[in-house]
Amino acid sequence: MNTRKNAVSKKEIILQEAARLFKDRGFGGTSMRDLAERVGIEAASMYNHIRSKDEILEEICFRIAREYVAHISEIEHADMSYREKVQALIGLHVKMITEDPHAVSVTNNDWKSLNAAAMASFKEIRKDYEKRFAALIQKGIEQGEFRAVHVSVALFTILSSLRWIELWYKPEREITKEELQKDITAILMNGINA
Amino acid sequence: MNTRKNAVSKKEIILQEAARLFKDRGFGGTSMRDLAERVGIEAASMYNHIRSKDEILEEICFRIAREYVAHISEIEHADMSYREKVQALIGLHVKMITEDPHAVSVTNNDWKSLNAAAMASFKEIRKDYEKRFAALIQKGIEQGEFRAVHVSVALFTILSSLRWIELWYKPEREITKEELQKDITAILMNGINA
Repeated sequence: MNTRKNAVSKKEIILQEAARLFKDRGFGGTSMRDLAERVGIEAASMYNHIRSKDEILEEICFRIAREYVAHISEIEHADMSYREKVQALIGLHVKMITEDPHAVSVTNNDWKSLNAAAMASFKEIRKDYEKRFAALIQKGIEQGEFRAVHVSVALFTILSSLRWIELWYKPEREITKEELQKDITAILMNGINA
Repeated sequence: MNTRKNAVSKKEIILQEAARLFKDRGFGGTSMRDLAERVGIEAASMYNHIRSKDEILEEICFRIAREYVAHISEIEHADMSYREKVQALIGLHVKMITEDPHAVSVTNNDWKSLNAAAMASFKEIRKDYEKRFAALIQKGIEQGEFRAVHVSVALFTILSSLRWIELWYKPEREITKEELQKDITAILMNGINA
């Protein structure tokens, strides 16, 4: 039991350190040896926890993707206005990016290095998520909650602002997570509100 | 005289076709031979018009960068409110991306392939442009034209939405350039307006 638990947490550490390394050096620029060194175990014993670098990337990307999907499913069924739903999704993105920046960044950028089957599946999940996000905006427009714009323009304006946070949001800007959340929510929600 | 004019327009064609190829295959994935074939001239005679692939990339990136800088200089000195100034910059970005999509895309993505000196100079121009854009937002906040948010959040929300247009704006979405311009301006300006 203890050994099993230990194995799980070692795997967690491997995934966390892998996300850091992939973010800093890119997926292609990171070797299993680099990763073993960072985690502080023998390269050979890495394979007790994880089969391959590909598997690590899959675990990172699909874990993040599943988290977004779980939240949008919850939000879709919640008893809230469309404004509240879209605001909750914006909040989710900011939270994920500020709390798990390496894994989110790897998911945003290195999914292109997934193997063909995994990439197809990942793209499908992402497309489905975008469609469901768009549907919430569309319904909000129909209900008169949001201004009458092309839904794609609203969707991608929101998503691109959120995805880019990882590229500019740095400690030296002296903006707390809460301030970031507050300001970006104000700009995006006022942007689309009718 | 005529020969000189001919040489200039052939160079123009080379730059345009290069931007297309770099966008489709990446800078690294495009050879001078590919480019000569696309332009319809002998690979050897390419060098009558252009010295190297590096020079082509520099011409593309700095031409686009200079265009943004020329416009922001004009806008800074214009007799307009800060709202009008920021709106004019948003309009400029949408216009550049919809009218010259390949060159803008290459500038956004392949500047990382510039040689070290050119890259340093390009990054300086880009940083200067961002600072000047931020200053217009900051002054607009101080004047009470824009809501009181961290200027970086406003700046990067705007810039990321605009830079990402190239990735999602496709003919099959059936949104005209004018509609894109109108919708994205409405969302971003209402987003930041006080």
